Amino acid sequence: MAFVRIREAKEEDCGNILRLIRELAEFEELADQVKISEEDLRADGFGENPFYYCLVAESLPSPGEPQGSCLVGYGLYYFIYSTWKGRSIYLEDIYVKPEYRGQGIGSKIIKKVAEVALDKGCSQFRLLVLDWNKRAMDLYKVLGAQDLTEAEGWHSFSFEGKVMKKLAEK
Amino acid sequence: MAFVRIREAKEEDCGNILRLIRELAEFEELADQVKISEEDLRADGFGENPFYYCLVAESLPSPGEPQGSCLVGYGLYYFIYSTWKGRSIYLEDIYVKPEYRGQGIGSKIIKKVAEVALDKGCSQFRLLVLDWNKRAMDLYKVLGAQDLTEAEGWHSFSFEGKVMKKLAEK
Repeated sequence: MAFVRIREAKEEDCGNILRLIRELAEFEELADQVKISEEDLRADGFGENPFYYCLVAESLPSPGEPQGSCLVGYGLYYFIYSTWKGRSIYLEDIYVKPEYRGQGIGSKIIKKVAEVALDKGCSQFRLLVLDWNKRAMDLYKVLGAQDLTEAEGWHSFSFEGKVMKKLAEK
Repeated sequence: MAFVRIREAKEEDCGNILRLIRELAEFEELADQVKISEEDLRADGFGENPFYYCLVAESLPSPGEPQGSCLVGYGLYYFIYSTWKGRSIYLEDIYVKPEYRGQGIGSKIIKKVAEVALDKGCSQFRLLVLDWNKRAMDLYKVLGAQDLTEAEGWHSFSFEGKVMKKLAEK
């Protein structure tokens, strides 16, 4: 089994990250919603004031193996703000390629995000998950997360593209 | 009826904003969860790289009225990132005092957030709402928002305080 390490993403990873973003959206059966480009990811994550931060899981070849390293998962996060708890971190996406699941890579990414959160003075770590993705929900629960939609009834709402534009121009 | 204007919050509003944050948490029946202080709000919203932005609804006295202006509502937002749509805005809180509801103040705050979103190149405007808050849910739907928890099954998860710390230190 190849060794997998978690590291911060570099700008040149953006093409591979976009491929993983598309794989995750396909898994979520919402692939038609991906409108982002590699250029967007480069500009928005690697400028002076990045809009997001990204961790990647990289599979390193064993000595003597011909193929190079490749990205097998990612976790994309940013900082948010809770009016109850203050500085918080939000994990927008977490994904591990199917053939690399069950090795604890997802848990390692989550642990790393929690480390960043703690380091940056955050007291809360939030994320959204699809209710039919039992495997992910079970993992988050085992790790100690609370399902706030179930416990308190929070629903996620969104104004998209044209609707948002119309709202602004009223 | 007093005239109400929407304006950007100033640092000296933080005490009044905190009172409104507590009122909203009481309305949501989750008042025990408010751990934030006025000092946190001042430091986190008014430094060089603010963690949040805030709009306030200010009631201005009619000419000749003895009392001064007062804050009757607020909307607190920040920028997030969607791996599907790119730069996005998130409305963490929106609140209007009960005696000022039904005058379109909430809609004005939402419109203003949509204007900021458009100005900053965002293509999505997200928020969370409690499922029993029918009045708010109906307003967002009338304004064109989609309930993604209902439509796609998104659940909000959170790792809080000690759990998050334990996760980081594993």
